[in-house]
Amino acid sequence: MLAQMKEELAQQRMENQKARQPIEKMSAEVVDSNPYSRLMALQRMGIVKDYERIREKAVAVVGVGGVGSVTADMLTRCGVGKLILFDYDKVELANMNRLFFTPDQAGLSKVEAAAKTLTFINPDVSIETHNYNITTVDSFDKFLDTIAHGGLQAGQPVDLVLSCVDNFEARMAINTACNELGLNWFESGVSENAVSGHIQFIRPGETACFACAPPLVVAENIDEKTLKREGVCAASLPTTMGITAGMLVQNTLKYLLNFGEVSDYLGYNAMNDFFPKMTLKPNTQCDDRHCLARQKEFAAKPKPVKEEVVEETNEQLHDDNEWGIELVDDSQPEEVAKPTEASNVTEGLRLAYEALVQDDTASANTVSAADVNLEDLMAQMKSM
Amino acid sequence: MLAQMKEELAQQRMENQKARQPIEKMSAEVVDSNPYSRLMALQRMGIVKDYERIREKAVAVVGVGGVGSVTADMLTRCGVGKLILFDYDKVELANMNRLFFTPDQAGLSKVEAAAKTLTFINPDVSIETHNYNITTVDSFDKFLDTIAHGGLQAGQPVDLVLSCVDNFEARMAINTACNELGLNWFESGVSENAVSGHIQFIRPGETACFACAPPLVVAENIDEKTLKREGVCAASLPTTMGITAGMLVQNTLKYLLNFGEVSDYLGYNAMNDFFPKMTLKPNTQCDDRHCLARQKEFAAKPKPVKEEVVEETNEQLHDDNEWGIELVDDSQPEEVAKPTEASNVTEGLRLAYEALVQDDTASANTVSAADVNLEDLMAQMKSM
Repeated sequence: MLAQMKEELAQQRMENQKARQPIEKMSAEVVDSNPYSRLMALQRMGIVKDYERIREKAVAVVGVGGVGSVTADMLTRCGVGKLILFDYDKVELANMNRLFFTPDQAGLSKVEAAAKTLTFINPDVSIETHNYNITTVDSFDKFLDTIAHGGLQAGQPVDLVLSCVDNFEARMAINTACNELGLNWFESGVSENAVSGHIQFIRPGETACFACAPPLVVAENIDEKTLKREGVCAASLPTTMGITAGMLVQNTLKYLLNFGEVSDYLGYNAMNDFFPKMTLKPNTQCDDRHCLARQKEFAAKPKPVKEEVVEETNEQLHDDNEWGIELVDDSQPEEVAKPTEASNVTEGLRLAYEALVQDDTASANTVSAADVNLEDLMAQMKSM
Repeated sequence: MLAQMKEELAQQRMENQKARQPIEKMSAEVVDSNPYSRLMALQRMGIVKDYERIREKAVAVVGVGGVGSVTADMLTRCGVGKLILFDYDKVELANMNRLFFTPDQAGLSKVEAAAKTLTFINPDVSIETHNYNITTVDSFDKFLDTIAHGGLQAGQPVDLVLSCVDNFEARMAINTACNELGLNWFESGVSENAVSGHIQFIRPGETACFACAPPLVVAENIDEKTLKREGVCAASLPTTMGITAGMLVQNTLKYLLNFGEVSDYLGYNAMNDFFPKMTLKPNTQCDDRHCLARQKEFAAKPKPVKEEVVEETNEQLHDDNEWGIELVDDSQPEEVAKPTEASNVTEGLRLAYEALVQDDTASANTVSAADVNLEDLMAQMKSM
């Protein structure tokens, strides 16, 4: 009886324990036991010059829900150096229609549950968790300090911030922090009806920030009558969230490891499998003073010189693609627009809310976010 | 000591046990404990008429690797009625750079490990596993019989077959079986260099089957010199595989639950975030006699009548989209081409290998798969 119990305990312990030991250096050796062989093969295939540089990168993921959890999972499996996770929510059974979390985790904090799973999957990744709401005054300061100094080099900022939150206030908090720090970040979102999503790459001073203009969302051409919001339960699908996370992490990898073209804005309409792209220039009347300061800095920089505020240690980044030049995909022309020129928005996209036209004709084309009712915004932004 | 051990055993058992009980009927109730609330919300949002019909659907997933495992995970979380998994491979640490499998599963058969995880995630889904190679003569018959009679209605076929395999022979086996049975299926693939993928919806007799023409793959415009194949280790990324699985399952949901437009072919080029679409008509000289028979059947059918060989019990399917009419996305025109008209292939796509031109001028535009060396094909198809 005791022997049987001992045996079962050993068995159960084995099932629960960490399944592999940390690995000192990524190997390209082609053996079944090497968890990095298929990633290091990207070098042999000519896609990435030095894949192992990913171990020097720190990425902050804000929001560990349907998009953020899969984002963290993908980055962990890719062997990123450090992940810093922010969330203050708990796992619920109602989240089981998306990838990553499992029913046994219901009731645990999302960051705690995620950290446990991610460390189990890849013990080589350093996982740091922050269980608070970044939009409160105290927590915002902690958030700002963490992304400003959470990089892998002592005192340095993280290499990239990924927004996977589901509300306007949190997006604005990330925007404010990244404008102040001059940190590049990706915004992401999925619509309330679960059939569209998008990612947007924001480079302070160089592209429109989140306060520059009403955010772009994918126009779904669905009968608006069917979109009545009862304000309770948004729909979600593992497909739309998985694709959005995939687009987000793929562009993160392209940015961090310097291959391919990083998209400034990429939308996804699930109804007809349409993926609109475009680029938004910053608003010279933006309400965020740090955005205006970054715009001045960017304008003053000689254009052939790289705008690499964050990535000072990464001389190899973008060496053949000066960021001031807009990326153009010749088979699907990418449009470049000023943020409030709604008529210039790529077909398949729309602004998340109506731009307010001010009396002053000189600024007729600008939007004042301060003039917009926050509650209205929150309701409208729920559809992101 | 014994008490302590008992306590730990109870704890470990709890961690390993199934975390929720089966649910008799999907509820739309908005409570944290309802795993279906966000899916049933698709009805309130006007996207899907009757979401719960997904419980009546049986889907076969052939290949439970990087794409197939995520495909099965998504369908499980969506609450599909029945999943039939085919694979004969084992989980390896070298698979850890993709989503789904965990290091503790190394050494287990993929179908066994997947079934355990999927049942844990959603005990409402019936999971059936087949641990064999469908391309051997005996196993092919078992495969054919399983998809012909594995539906949720006794004796009926499955509702859809999803190909997530990584080689030419297995794709041809699925093609042969589905042509014979008149079963609709999706082909999917990811390139050897990890930066492109595609899905293709094959409706026997109505669209090009896999033997009608060289398969379409995404042209990546990457210097071919960098693509030298050392024949050992393909690169892979969780992003590309997750996006491909997401496109596959999203179109599966649109097809099974009758919403949006199901894409005939959707490609993905990660380098520039380009997603080409097109439709391929069947080849009237196809080498597969069942394909030719399905073409005759389709041609003989009055066009306003639905071609629903598989979905006889689903009168609601496609009621406003007769499948003989090609879907056209007006913002990104979809091209319709005969399979061997290479010049008509949508920009961003290419045929996987060169079409052989025969002496007979009457069939100069056709391809004879039998004339192609199988080893060459296997090598070329590895890039899918």
